[in-house]
Amino acid sequence: MIVETLAVGTELLLGQIVNTNATEIAVRLADAGLDHHHQSVVGDNVDRLAEAIQTALGRADAVIITGGIGPTQDDLTRDAICAAAGVSMAYDDEYADHLRAWWSRRGREMPSSNLKQAEYPDGAERIPNRKGTAPGLALSTDSGWIFAVPGVPAEMLPMIDGHIIPLLQREAGGDDAVVVSRLLRTWGESESRVGELFADLFETSTNPTVAFLASAGEIKIRLTAKAATDDEARALIAPVEAEVRRRMGAKVFGADDETIEHVVLRRLEELGWTLGTAESATGGLISARITAVPGASTVFRGGIVAYATDIKHGVLGVADHLIEEHGVVSEEVACVMASHAADVLGADVVISVTGSAGPDPQERTAGTMIVGVHTPDQVLAKTLFMPGDRERVRAYTTTAALHLARLALTGVWWGGSKDEASGLDRWMRPGGS
Amino acid sequence: MIVETLAVGTELLLGQIVNTNATEIAVRLADAGLDHHHQSVVGDNVDRLAEAIQTALGRADAVIITGGIGPTQDDLTRDAICAAAGVSMAYDDEYADHLRAWWSRRGREMPSSNLKQAEYPDGAERIPNRKGTAPGLALSTDSGWIFAVPGVPAEMLPMIDGHIIPLLQREAGGDDAVVVSRLLRTWGESESRVGELFADLFETSTNPTVAFLASAGEIKIRLTAKAATDDEARALIAPVEAEVRRRMGAKVFGADDETIEHVVLRRLEELGWTLGTAESATGGLISARITAVPGASTVFRGGIVAYATDIKHGVLGVADHLIEEHGVVSEEVACVMASHAADVLGADVVISVTGSAGPDPQERTAGTMIVGVHTPDQVLAKTLFMPGDRERVRAYTTTAALHLARLALTGVWWGGSKDEASGLDRWMRPGGS
Repeated sequence: MIVETLAVGTELLLGQIVNTNATEIAVRLADAGLDHHHQSVVGDNVDRLAEAIQTALGRADAVIITGGIGPTQDDLTRDAICAAAGVSMAYDDEYADHLRAWWSRRGREMPSSNLKQAEYPDGAERIPNRKGTAPGLALSTDSGWIFAVPGVPAEMLPMIDGHIIPLLQREAGGDDAVVVSRLLRTWGESESRVGELFADLFETSTNPTVAFLASAGEIKIRLTAKAATDDEARALIAPVEAEVRRRMGAKVFGADDETIEHVVLRRLEELGWTLGTAESATGGLISARITAVPGASTVFRGGIVAYATDIKHGVLGVADHLIEEHGVVSEEVACVMASHAADVLGADVVISVTGSAGPDPQERTAGTMIVGVHTPDQVLAKTLFMPGDRERVRAYTTTAALHLARLALTGVWWGGSKDEASGLDRWMRPGGS
Repeated sequence: MIVETLAVGTELLLGQIVNTNATEIAVRLADAGLDHHHQSVVGDNVDRLAEAIQTALGRADAVIITGGIGPTQDDLTRDAICAAAGVSMAYDDEYADHLRAWWSRRGREMPSSNLKQAEYPDGAERIPNRKGTAPGLALSTDSGWIFAVPGVPAEMLPMIDGHIIPLLQREAGGDDAVVVSRLLRTWGESESRVGELFADLFETSTNPTVAFLASAGEIKIRLTAKAATDDEARALIAPVEAEVRRRMGAKVFGADDETIEHVVLRRLEELGWTLGTAESATGGLISARITAVPGASTVFRGGIVAYATDIKHGVLGVADHLIEEHGVVSEEVACVMASHAADVLGADVVISVTGSAGPDPQERTAGTMIVGVHTPDQVLAKTLFMPGDRERVRAYTTTAALHLARLALTGVWWGGSKDEASGLDRWMRPGGS
């Protein structure tokens, strides 16, 4: 059963709103095991809309149209369905009375344009709207199903969940498969290297399929399986997931919704340690990421953003001679920042960053960023060379700092087994205060 | 000149990411006066992608494809363009050398799959990628232009702005009208109130057109004029801009690319004052926003993220009796945090935040956020009630804090003329330490 989605609205084509409806419906189609090969958007134009409906039914078994079923002049979806399906417009007297009563209960006279919502393509079933006045539409044609739902998410989603998805699953009958996705999150390898490492799986594995997604230095490996039941789909994924984990080792840091900040906070909780930050070039991005997690306060004590050099000196106790000897952008300063912040903040673990984020070089080439991690066991620092502009350098360094902290907290950095740590050496070099 | 957009990626069809690229490009097409009738999304499937390109060129003069030009096996856009346009794949030796050099400068060996990025449909111009390695593509065919850009926004947008839009505008030729947009940035009124305030301009003004955009509490008013020359378009905008500024007063804080953090930093430079932050619930977001601006170091000294209550006490000198009497989430504590941070950081001006970001209430209802501002003249605090989830509360409070600082620095908060301040009162209430 292949389903397409078609959003209607000139405001989408002008970029005034984002098409989050398509995303919401896409998630539900995937969960229901329904195939979804195309999404489209057209404006409030009856000819283009009718053509888009026909194009969709030329390649899919059903099309779900969002928007264009309200009461105003630019609500043209009903007319376009009539044109595309070759049916005439019918009028529901009973629904017109219902609309009049709805307005009258609110003590207001109904604008006559609202009667437009009592029109429907002949033969279409009306889907009740629990949150508004425009009913949804379901029309079975020789070319496939046409559904129309409101563009307002609160009105649309109950129709999708309560009516359209169950109907399509019944129609799909035989192959009512479930689609399950598993996202393995990794850090420490480039996207292209990950692609190479899994070229064989990508080529040969059809169920689950294997895909790669990159964001801010993290590479995600997505395994998507289709089966009759959720359990069967998970069973198909399990051996491939095990293989991915075997090949990537400690570079897999989490799965699905687990972000690196969640992983770090959970590890600290296990260890019974508290966390602090001492940031220069990242300017508070690390503490902002950490405190975005609800409940971070059980572990996170606070941070210091030491932007001016004399704050590193005054607040963080970085000795002048250290700065003179090694420079502010040095592993030595990153280590001292972390350790002194641990004192000042009363934190067991501190992540520190000093660096030159650009665009102009500060002491060292723009993009030279140094991460330090203080733990009760050790203090380490690592110099990173980040490509790109200031924004990218800061964002990637923030992600890298959280990952280096995780490795420090799981013993990979300085004490993990050689196998686990293999390949990660290039990121790490022990520093010292 | 009709342009279509086509996004590539199975993750879009599974609902794992939202197609914000389509929105970003749509805004730019509208601004450039280029018509945009269809948006589409297809998955990582070379046949469907090739067919979608042909469909697009069957009804438009150009198609802009986002995504699928990276180095991995599921990056199929180059192959699909070859198939759709009936051209063969060419190979750029020079670019391959450039890629090898890029990796070698970073001291790493290039995975051979990266050489895929040196492939290009024969005849296509390569668009330089200033933020990554995959070049964009521009291919002129008998059916129209095919452009391919990366899916990563930071890599994509410079290609759209710097290359593709200017090219399409030149191609549009004949009606070489210039489209000029002016964005007036405001803060302090709701979107619906701004809409009401300018309903007459929205209805009657056709050149420039008036549009409203909301983001994180700021409302932007976009004036877009079309004329034969840039000067003529600007002359059409000028009187409408003057009228917007007259009606909105001090709520207009900047125009075009001027963000609130730029405006605050420039004002501080004028005054010769330095800046610091003392954040609790926003956890570093304010300092991160400020330090995102290149050159912030001339004004910004540093910040303290006081997440645990005893850090507010220990590092920021907030007296125990104050916390006992008023609570941590109080205007009194916000004021003391700001003033003590000014001492600790040696800053003339400090922005402070304490609050309850949610989801669970902390002392006060979730969404109760308090902003303090210390200046050499005065210390003030303001209680805000922010709707939405934790992420939204923190983001909106960060924006609000920067705006309240701007008002404090321009004298509107406590000393501005009544006219200028009108309507802003609802945001403000002087506090005291």
